[in-house]
Amino acid sequence: MTRTLRPHNFSAGPGELPPGVLEAASRALIEVPEVGLPLLGISHRSKWFGDVVAEAEAIVRDLLDLPKNYHVLFLQGGATLQFSAVAATFLRDRNRFADYLETGYWSRKCLPEARKEGRIRVLWSGEADGYSRLPSDVELDLSPDAAYFHYISNETVEGLQFHRLLGLEGVRRVCDMSSDFLSRPIDVQKFDLIYAHAQKNLGPAGVTVVILRDDVLEEVPEGLPSMMDYRPHVEMRSIFNTPPTFGIYVVLLVLRWLRDEVGGLVAMNRINETKAARLYAMLDRSDGFYRGRAARIDRSLMNVSFNLPTPELERSFLQEAQGQGLFGLEGHRSCGGVRASLYNAVSLESVDRLCRFMAEFRDAADPSVVDQTRPVEAVV
Amino acid sequence: MTRTLRPHNFSAGPGELPPGVLEAASRALIEVPEVGLPLLGISHRSKWFGDVVAEAEAIVRDLLDLPKNYHVLFLQGGATLQFSAVAATFLRDRNRFADYLETGYWSRKCLPEARKEGRIRVLWSGEADGYSRLPSDVELDLSPDAAYFHYISNETVEGLQFHRLLGLEGVRRVCDMSSDFLSRPIDVQKFDLIYAHAQKNLGPAGVTVVILRDDVLEEVPEGLPSMMDYRPHVEMRSIFNTPPTFGIYVVLLVLRWLRDEVGGLVAMNRINETKAARLYAMLDRSDGFYRGRAARIDRSLMNVSFNLPTPELERSFLQEAQGQGLFGLEGHRSCGGVRASLYNAVSLESVDRLCRFMAEFRDAADPSVVDQTRPVEAVV
Repeated sequence: MTRTLRPHNFSAGPGELPPGVLEAASRALIEVPEVGLPLLGISHRSKWFGDVVAEAEAIVRDLLDLPKNYHVLFLQGGATLQFSAVAATFLRDRNRFADYLETGYWSRKCLPEARKEGRIRVLWSGEADGYSRLPSDVELDLSPDAAYFHYISNETVEGLQFHRLLGLEGVRRVCDMSSDFLSRPIDVQKFDLIYAHAQKNLGPAGVTVVILRDDVLEEVPEGLPSMMDYRPHVEMRSIFNTPPTFGIYVVLLVLRWLRDEVGGLVAMNRINETKAARLYAMLDRSDGFYRGRAARIDRSLMNVSFNLPTPELERSFLQEAQGQGLFGLEGHRSCGGVRASLYNAVSLESVDRLCRFMAEFRDAADPSVVDQTRPVEAVV
Repeated sequence: MTRTLRPHNFSAGPGELPPGVLEAASRALIEVPEVGLPLLGISHRSKWFGDVVAEAEAIVRDLLDLPKNYHVLFLQGGATLQFSAVAATFLRDRNRFADYLETGYWSRKCLPEARKEGRIRVLWSGEADGYSRLPSDVELDLSPDAAYFHYISNETVEGLQFHRLLGLEGVRRVCDMSSDFLSRPIDVQKFDLIYAHAQKNLGPAGVTVVILRDDVLEEVPEGLPSMMDYRPHVEMRSIFNTPPTFGIYVVLLVLRWLRDEVGGLVAMNRINETKAARLYAMLDRSDGFYRGRAARIDRSLMNVSFNLPTPELERSFLQEAQGQGLFGLEGHRSCGGVRASLYNAVSLESVDRLCRFMAEFRDAADPSVVDQTRPVEAVV
């Protein structure tokens, strides 16, 4: 393939990573200078790799201003294994229940895994609304007796994001932040356990970051598989068994970039807000040609899901976009349409390039098609 | 660090990979030419990545001459998660037992994970012999009523390897081949389930290959976490949740190398036998200066564990070796000493270089120290 344009990657994940990180990782595959060996040939028990994990942990602590009674883990198995591990930790073999929300594709995937481990209540489902909005606080009948309350901060598929803290004081708060972790500041002390797989904002697929408060460890029942038991991983500082060494090293490179080049989470959030604002403005000024799926108040800064007037137009849009070096814009297989993911490493330049293409594509579209469209306000 | 010598890597894992594989992986981190994107930014749901998994599976099938009723999976969680998944598949919530062997560090680690899921019998333990030998068939009271029989084909830490098939006809045979999978031909139809993490002979840490016969899927009880339930992974052809895309791609590159450059498993085994023979000959001709840990009959072709007359000499040996570009020779933290791992990608040239160093080191050692040694025959 001959490529004339630098690619702009809007993939929903595995997604864009900073070019400097990719170059450093590429060099490390040939040789890690401090060690004199290729990255993939270095023992996970070496001092060098221990230092990699320790530095990655230190930067996460620094970025989140994490108190000492929180642990930072780098694990395997994705969010899917965490769906099980969280529920097993608090519910297995106990007469308790937990409160969950069903706000989109991923929280729906989470529920059956949790149900295998114990009793859960689903407080709210967005299914009737086609997962186009998130609940308000008054819609949630949160129980003070729940073992924990679980929600997903950003629904990657539908492009819905909570812009406030959910839950009750006095009930453990567990949050899947897979698609917005380290994209904005969070008040981490409000959470008992946070998990996030790496392949959105943090690094390659195959690493999952877990942050948990020390007292969560007291809840772990005996008899869990070690890969679902947080205690040995805390004790061995993420090197209980052989961890995905390449993935954790790349996560470290991304963390250094976030701290040193971006300047931390406040700065990152500002950039992410600007990117999302420009793209949503393009949707809103399109006279309904581009129709956002999410209710305005719940719009995600990370994933912008939208439709065009017809499936045919969506197909041409995706094809022409790719021809112009704009990649990864296909909507999720569960709902189709278009989705632009604006993770940390997606540049403002890429977003501007996308907006320019969208304006051109709309201008070139058959006006009779455009006229058929509903006004975007009807979407909520 | 200034390096004057090309490194020779004898790490027990993550270990040496073929230089051509590392170079191709390094380039793919910048751009995969067929896609026009960096490897880490390509969706796991893309056609390209589906083709990567399909080709990797096809090569494994080809190398092992795998019948159609066997599945090939690329999973997360290492052998440790398989310790749990295997036992949960056959034993959880059932009045059954399985037969296990305790032949070294790794099979010992496996036992507590299996016990969490059901009843197991340990037929034989090498503990009394310091895990210096493997059992003969007459020492094993295998039960025809066991749900399955589990063993580890190569004990990485101690350097012990079974050079025959174990188990009873009519009893399911499950084998952890983490450290010798695809290093030699195997009669795969004798096995119901084989698992092997990648970081020895197959690729980077973070990928685990599982091969299972179709009828194993009927044994899976309801209620297992999806990451321990083989069925969804078979159904989704290893893309149930986001798989470790980088790791699987590198595994594909290694598999191509094994098929195209090495010429398959018979050729690979011949090379591995030659490498091991040269190193063991060095041990055996050292008048007890280098003392192999493993009984001769059970010597591993993959991991050669040995001691020197004193811990001080072992320290100098490791230090001088590293100065000469010979890396990863430290024995496992559980037993110390020296260990040279001779995985598929370790070249004959590297082994010859190691043997030369060992001869020089012995010649330079204080003769009075050498005289104190026991003859190697005493070790068994």
